[in-house]
Amino acid sequence: MVIDNQLKQKNLRLKKKIEKIKVVLTDNDGVLTDTGVYYSNKGEEFKRFSIRDGMGVERLRKYAGIETIIITGEESGSVKARAKKLKIKEYYLGVKKKADILTEILKKNKVKPENIAFIGDDANDFELMKLVGFKVTPVDGMNFIKEISDYVCENKGGNGAFRELAELIIAFQSGLKRSY
Amino acid sequence: MVIDNQLKQKNLRLKKKIEKIKVVLTDNDGVLTDTGVYYSNKGEEFKRFSIRDGMGVERLRKYAGIETIIITGEESGSVKARAKKLKIKEYYLGVKKKADILTEILKKNKVKPENIAFIGDDANDFELMKLVGFKVTPVDGMNFIKEISDYVCENKGGNGAFRELAELIIAFQSGLKRSY
Amino acid sequence: MVIDNQLKQKNLRLKKKIEKIKVVLTDNDGVLTDTGVYYSNKGEEFKRFSIRDGMGVERLRKYAGIETIIITGEESGSVKARAKKLKIKEYYLGVKKKADILTEILKKNKVKPENIAFIGDDANDFELMKLVGFKVTPVDGMNFIKEISDYVCENKGGNGAFRELAELIIAFQSGLKRSY
Amino acid sequence: MVIDNQLKQKNLRLKKKIEKIKVVLTDNDGVLTDTGVYYSNKGEEFKRFSIRDGMGVERLRKYAGIETIIITGEESGSVKARAKKLKIKEYYLGVKKKADILTEILKKNKVKPENIAFIGDDANDFELMKLVGFKVTPVDGMNFIKEISDYVCENKGGNGAFRELAELIIAFQSGLKRSY
Repeated sequence: MVIDNQLKQKNLRLKKKIEKIKVVLTDNDGVLTDTGVYYSNKGEEFKRFSIRDGMGVERLRKYAGIETIIITGEESGSVKARAKKLKIKEYYLGVKKKADILTEILKKNKVKPENIAFIGDDANDFELMKLVGFKVTPVDGMNFIKEISDYVCENKGGNGAFRELAELIIAFQSGLKRSY
Repeated sequence: MVIDNQLKQKNLRLKKKIEKIKVVLTDNDGVLTDTGVYYSNKGEEFKRFSIRDGMGVERLRKYAGIETIIITGEESGSVKARAKKLKIKEYYLGVKKKADILTEILKKNKVKPENIAFIGDDANDFELMKLVGFKVTPVDGMNFIKEISDYVCENKGGNGAFRELAELIIAFQSGLKRSY
Repeated sequence: MVIDNQLKQKNLRLKKKIEKIKVVLTDNDGVLTDTGVYYSNKGEEFKRFSIRDGMGVERLRKYAGIETIIITGEESGSVKARAKKLKIKEYYLGVKKKADILTEILKKNKVKPENIAFIGDDANDFELMKLVGFKVTPVDGMNFIKEISDYVCENKGGNGAFRELAELIIAFQSGLKRSY
Repeated sequence: MVIDNQLKQKNLRLKKKIEKIKVVLTDNDGVLTDTGVYYSNKGEEFKRFSIRDGMGVERLRKYAGIETIIITGEESGSVKARAKKLKIKEYYLGVKKKADILTEILKKNKVKPENIAFIGDDANDFELMKLVGFKVTPVDGMNFIKEISDYVCENKGGNGAFRELAELIIAFQSGLKRSY
């Protein structure tokens, strides 16, 4: 009974946070990828993304009217190419302090911090994560990120975590059953 | 006893469905691959397929006289190259609404919906899946696809799920023991 | 007590088989790889091998004087390149019926079937496997291959299965402790 | 109570070893990678590294003033390129006997063996490992390496093992909470 009430309270808190989301911010490595980077003797060549996560970006746009923004500390051309494919127009590469860029994002998108969901997995996501309304991490995110997250995905980075977040938002905002 | 009977009934239903199969339709991403797509700074470069699944295509042809057809929402050249290697002559790329193409497939192959097995894993497979005789998904297919499937594979997409479907059909249709 | 005796009997049978091994035959896909094959729009591009398995080839040569022979149904240039790196001089590509090539291998290496260990994982390994002295498969080999194997590795194909076989032979033949 | 004391003793021993570390030595294949190597028909093309491990190299430098040195038996250009990206200036490629190079490393870095942590996973790491102060291995390191290790990571090679070592050192040396 007590446990039931706690769960109900938790879901209610989640609902309140998710209903306010207007923009989804995502880290790249460890979220849209499994942290892997493929090197030849010429340097970085590839990163592996997931079609299933890509469908999350498209479904967020279609069913909830929400755009996805990528913000990453790396400067990989691969993420730019992936963003283009997914028609993501706003992305930030080579960002040393992610928290510093929040003001620009808020202004550009005419939203408040409580309207932003952010999914990250590691140290350079920590400060930004603390500033936004809905904090999410993949099941294999670093422990200290999990500790401050509102929601820990069941799926791994590069393997459905982003999609899970997308479906969660679609379900709470559109009334569409989560699984479809 | 009741459970035994239920299992017997379930196997009988499976048998009836599988005996009618004349064509196997398969999605690509998440079924023939593990949803992964490798990007360089020039865009999409590779997808990873499984030799074991490829052997499923060849064994279906050899032991059950059944051809495999690929139908995918993406336009990857890699799937075209893979189809060529496996001597798959019928494939549909960049299909926005997969269900819309069923009539063409039925006509071309002179079969009815009940003669078609379809293995898919995600949202864009949902409508088509509901129209065919035998609905299959990998163990890591999306939950809402599992819910409408006749058979959920023990194996993952890109890692033996297609082969499992192939062996299932071969076993039920040819009388060959499933495992060989 | 009965179980103890059975285990002792089993280890004794293993020992007898392994002591006779003079040549190791290995399949490629699913044994030296995890069955994966990477395609671009130009066709097959890469396969993934394991440094740890490669060390198995080198240690077999160094500590047991045993050469490794690759026999595969595919015609991938990647396996030829990998063989060259590992100084494997004898390999057979594009072999349709692997069992048919055994006589040639026996003659060339001046050995009998009982002197051959073969590690395979799938249908096209079945007939050859039945003809050799020591039959091995990765933990993720197909079930019908496991059923006829003398030894099922704890490790997966492309991820240590070959190395495990190599260390097993080194341990039984050289008296070197298995783990080093 | 006895168990509690044993744990306390163990942590104390760990602490003493880690406080002395001034340099981190790492193997490449199986530690910074998952042992995988990607071949085309032209030979070795790629290895997969982890952004999360790379962040370990940078955080060790920033928070503990400790440089990372790579020592590998292979001669892959990919590791050289990865080292360049991570601003690792000292690395040794194609090293046949890793233990033989220790004297040079000690001299160059003006440290003693007790100031060196080494993370390795396989046979060619064994001798060097026995000579250094703090011996570490990924959770999927070979068993005989685990047996002589002071610390076995919870994470796998190429997937966070190096980062775990980095955070462990940072936590013990800087007083920073381990998880951040």
